[in-house]
Amino acid sequence: MPRLAYLGPEGTFTEEALRLLDPTAERVPCATVSAALNAARGGDADGAVVPLENSIEGAITTTLDEFAWGEPLVINAELLLPVQFSLLARPGVEIPHIKRVYTHPAAITQCRSFIARELPDTVVVSAPSTAAAAQEVSLPGSPYDAAIAARIAGEHYGLVELAPDIGDRSDTVTRFVKVSRPGPLPEVTGSDRTTLVVFLADDHPGALLEMLTEFSVRGVNLTRIESRPTGDGIGRYFFHFDFEGHVADARVGEAIAGLHRICGEVRFLGSYPRADGLAPQIKRGTSDPEFAEAGDWLARIRAGRV
Amino acid sequence: MPRLAYLGPEGTFTEEALRLLDPTAERVPCATVSAALNAARGGDADGAVVPLENSIEGAITTTLDEFAWGEPLVINAELLLPVQFSLLARPGVEIPHIKRVYTHPAAITQCRSFIARELPDTVVVSAPSTAAAAQEVSLPGSPYDAAIAARIAGEHYGLVELAPDIGDRSDTVTRFVKVSRPGPLPEVTGSDRTTLVVFLADDHPGALLEMLTEFSVRGVNLTRIESRPTGDGIGRYFFHFDFEGHVADARVGEAIAGLHRICGEVRFLGSYPRADGLAPQIKRGTSDPEFAEAGDWLARIRAGRV
Amino acid sequence: MPRLAYLGPEGTFTEEALRLLDPTAERVPCATVSAALNAARGGDADGAVVPLENSIEGAITTTLDEFAWGEPLVINAELLLPVQFSLLARPGVEIPHIKRVYTHPAAITQCRSFIARELPDTVVVSAPSTAAAAQEVSLPGSPYDAAIAARIAGEHYGLVELAPDIGDRSDTVTRFVKVSRPGPLPEVTGSDRTTLVVFLADDHPGALLEMLTEFSVRGVNLTRIESRPTGDGIGRYFFHFDFEGHVADARVGEAIAGLHRICGEVRFLGSYPRADGLAPQIKRGTSDPEFAEAGDWLARIRAGRV
Amino acid sequence: MPRLAYLGPEGTFTEEALRLLDPTAERVPCATVSAALNAARGGDADGAVVPLENSIEGAITTTLDEFAWGEPLVINAELLLPVQFSLLARPGVEIPHIKRVYTHPAAITQCRSFIARELPDTVVVSAPSTAAAAQEVSLPGSPYDAAIAARIAGEHYGLVELAPDIGDRSDTVTRFVKVSRPGPLPEVTGSDRTTLVVFLADDHPGALLEMLTEFSVRGVNLTRIESRPTGDGIGRYFFHFDFEGHVADARVGEAIAGLHRICGEVRFLGSYPRADGLAPQIKRGTSDPEFAEAGDWLARIRAGRV
Repeated sequence: MPRLAYLGPEGTFTEEALRLLDPTAERVPCATVSAALNAARGGDADGAVVPLENSIEGAITTTLDEFAWGEPLVINAELLLPVQFSLLARPGVEIPHIKRVYTHPAAITQCRSFIARELPDTVVVSAPSTAAAAQEVSLPGSPYDAAIAARIAGEHYGLVELAPDIGDRSDTVTRFVKVSRPGPLPEVTGSDRTTLVVFLADDHPGALLEMLTEFSVRGVNLTRIESRPTGDGIGRYFFHFDFEGHVADARVGEAIAGLHRICGEVRFLGSYPRADGLAPQIKRGTSDPEFAEAGDWLARIRAGRV
Repeated sequence: MPRLAYLGPEGTFTEEALRLLDPTAERVPCATVSAALNAARGGDADGAVVPLENSIEGAITTTLDEFAWGEPLVINAELLLPVQFSLLARPGVEIPHIKRVYTHPAAITQCRSFIARELPDTVVVSAPSTAAAAQEVSLPGSPYDAAIAARIAGEHYGLVELAPDIGDRSDTVTRFVKVSRPGPLPEVTGSDRTTLVVFLADDHPGALLEMLTEFSVRGVNLTRIESRPTGDGIGRYFFHFDFEGHVADARVGEAIAGLHRICGEVRFLGSYPRADGLAPQIKRGTSDPEFAEAGDWLARIRAGRV
Repeated sequence: MPRLAYLGPEGTFTEEALRLLDPTAERVPCATVSAALNAARGGDADGAVVPLENSIEGAITTTLDEFAWGEPLVINAELLLPVQFSLLARPGVEIPHIKRVYTHPAAITQCRSFIARELPDTVVVSAPSTAAAAQEVSLPGSPYDAAIAARIAGEHYGLVELAPDIGDRSDTVTRFVKVSRPGPLPEVTGSDRTTLVVFLADDHPGALLEMLTEFSVRGVNLTRIESRPTGDGIGRYFFHFDFEGHVADARVGEAIAGLHRICGEVRFLGSYPRADGLAPQIKRGTSDPEFAEAGDWLARIRAGRV
Repeated sequence: MPRLAYLGPEGTFTEEALRLLDPTAERVPCATVSAALNAARGGDADGAVVPLENSIEGAITTTLDEFAWGEPLVINAELLLPVQFSLLARPGVEIPHIKRVYTHPAAITQCRSFIARELPDTVVVSAPSTAAAAQEVSLPGSPYDAAIAARIAGEHYGLVELAPDIGDRSDTVTRFVKVSRPGPLPEVTGSDRTTLVVFLADDHPGALLEMLTEFSVRGVNLTRIESRPTGDGIGRYFFHFDFEGHVADARVGEAIAGLHRICGEVRFLGSYPRADGLAPQIKRGTSDPEFAEAGDWLARIRAGRV
């Protein structure tokens, strides 16, 4: 039974994701994304589950930066989790009583309409996580009357759900990834995704276009690009790329070897099954058999057998 | 004397930026980036100053999303402000007394080494802004013993600077922009930057490469690209682009008209002098005179005068 | 009634093309392509009809070089003419009598199988044109027994057709163009072609790729590219391009203005209706209305009206 | 001592090229380029020397088409030969006596100024080759008074040089290649060239741009491109490419394997030392060691060793 660290406390969306990714795992809640990843790095856990991006908030930059700068970890699974917020309170508290609400800033943003409509005079205070907010609200004597958090957090901490699904959009999704220390890669499934971090060699005009051309010429489709600052002043960035395919695929291997040749540093963050199960459209001439056949052809030519 | 809204309260880095961008402006502090921008939109202020990105934290996503989705505003100036954090406390409090520190999460991240070394047993609590933290700490009876904030915040709120420049890196910079409602553009200076938001028409493979090619073929160099979620699920993004040149430059105009033709929506966010004063290297064939000459040549050909 | 010069003498395929392109024209046979073009340049004729390329032989390089280096002429019509060769002889001569055949080298190449099969022991001699061959053979006392030429040439010169359609391929086609001194252009028909000559500014790596990108980024499809030596040594070339669309089309205009900006010299050789009547597939964002709308949008932005 | 076929008769520029390429070879003159190549194909000769292109005339299309369609041969050497024409006549004939000149059409074109100036009233007749013209003129009773040919042809056939170097340009050059049946390739010298013939899989818009991108993304510089008709009607072409580097170079191998994957057919025509001895500028990331290192890196990643 693997031990998996996650962004806690109990009752976070991350816990929900972990339960879905590995129902049998032993769960190790950690205070921060960094702490969860360090648990995996250091061996306190066999891996970790952390959020990578949210369909409203965008990238979880702490996760991106940890993946780029920290001791290497690789993704071996991903999950898309619908995010539904509930208004949670201690038993006996009703909506009209609520003066102070505690929740994570992302939830404040995503529940803006509900708050304006139902809690117009309420003070909303930022919490480190929605689950931490629920935990705090559950304490007798808490200065907060209600939390906005996952329903699961209410169950954990004995809160009552005063209103379900209060987000402005009902289709919000967070993408979680399960990571572990480097080791054998997940098998090719035909519906895979690969994630990289790429640092430029020198920041010349056209550098990004060149990188994208390394992908496109091998028929590898990007699914996400994020730029992050290198820390060396405004205007200096590195990149996260997600793209279709597995590093064991010939087209993917040649593309990332190409990036490796022209870039300053390429860090491999894993090849893993896509959560959405979509298979890529493989462009003419870029399938594994076509690469193999071209390699044979080239070998014959080099041997003088035209 | 223009009225400029900004991310307050008094003592924020944004206030410092505003003072440098327009020393004579009347300053209108607002609780959030959105509130500051809304003040400019609604006419309560003539414009607003807000942070756009930080060399450690990256993009200020609230600002990006407000620019993309809110009522249109355009940037007419930018400023690069070195960010230096101070440890601030009420008079009489010394470092050994400090049990609880209050500051913005970005400051927690950026002062990690100092905190670990000098305040190892201290609880650090997240504040909505560094200036708000200083303000809170200045109140008698505050549960916090110290704030991490700009020196200017200490001066505002009567705090003592216990330690200056406590960030892990001494070269951290935040980029601020001054925006106003649309109107006449700043003049071309020869060292200009232009900012756009671009939504894809349809998210086909190669769409980003096509957009970059619209720039590169006219010799327009990108200086920043940020992807942001459209809200319509994981895997759907729009883009912020910064690039060299002014929309009045022929090469820039043709490039963004090209984007406008192939993309779903292009929102112009302003052309304005670069804070760093760098002039672009103009690629052969893409200067204004070369565009004008080519236009004359084409007109002659179309008129049958070869 | 216009006077049109052509590659003579009477009975050439070019004469046939001229009759189809302009049945009412007065025909002025000339000894060479250059002579025909010079007649048009100098005013002895109102225009000229010359071959441009053949589906077996390829480009007629004399024509290409005349268009590139001579006094400017522009194409205003094109024609695709099936090329069918006949074996022609003076009345009374039968195939078994034929010892010496006279014809143009292209006809020798294209009738190779027939010659090998039916005239295995015959000497085949090169003539300046197939019609000149027929003319020569028609003279009493000619050293040649037969000519390979167009049937029309046999009719002109009183020869008997011993064998029709003797080419190796029955689908051979020659493309002819009608040119005149520069003047008002043919109207846009929606099925147009444009021809250019392009000299590089400097022969750097990637120069050809850059030129093709000027076309592709505006959705302009090439239909022919020919390289020709500049005369300045092996390895120095200029280019002929044919592509879809009319110079009056916005996408075409912007593409060739782009070439004009980055290349050493661009010579416009005309926009004219396509002989095959095919209409181009216009890529999203590159139609005239889309260009016009993008121009209006840009003008509004430059005027500060976002 | 190898036997090399060449475009004869004795005295052609091709013979001169052959003597320079392999002074010790036994020389086998042939009537046509095709005959010379067939001699090499069939084993009558160990190889052949033929012209490929001329700095004024352009490509020798017979050679290009033979290389594309005939039994495979590969180039193993190239030579750039300055082409200087002489006016040659039988002993006793002076310029004022000359009524009829015999020479190859290319020589007519290239000596146009001399002919117009010195031989204004002379009839100039086309010969199959300049050497054949010289041979013919040397015969007593020839209908021609002079030939334009290489000086070497005059020496062969006992003619007197009436005027040396009569070409319009004194820097005309012809590129010759030595070919043989496929076998072990010439060694990598660091200053190599590779030649290919490429047939499209399907003639979609952008196909040429895609081919060039396969080269450019691996930093392989084209030195020549020629389009030739496939024979299947106007508008259908295949391509000859010359480019820097040897097929044994990693960047060249990957580029042509890429072409092989996306094109209909790629025919390898040889890697051989450049006659000009120029070494390519190797773009960052495309040297053999960089390819090898990237391959090792990829292998480590695929093995799970990040």
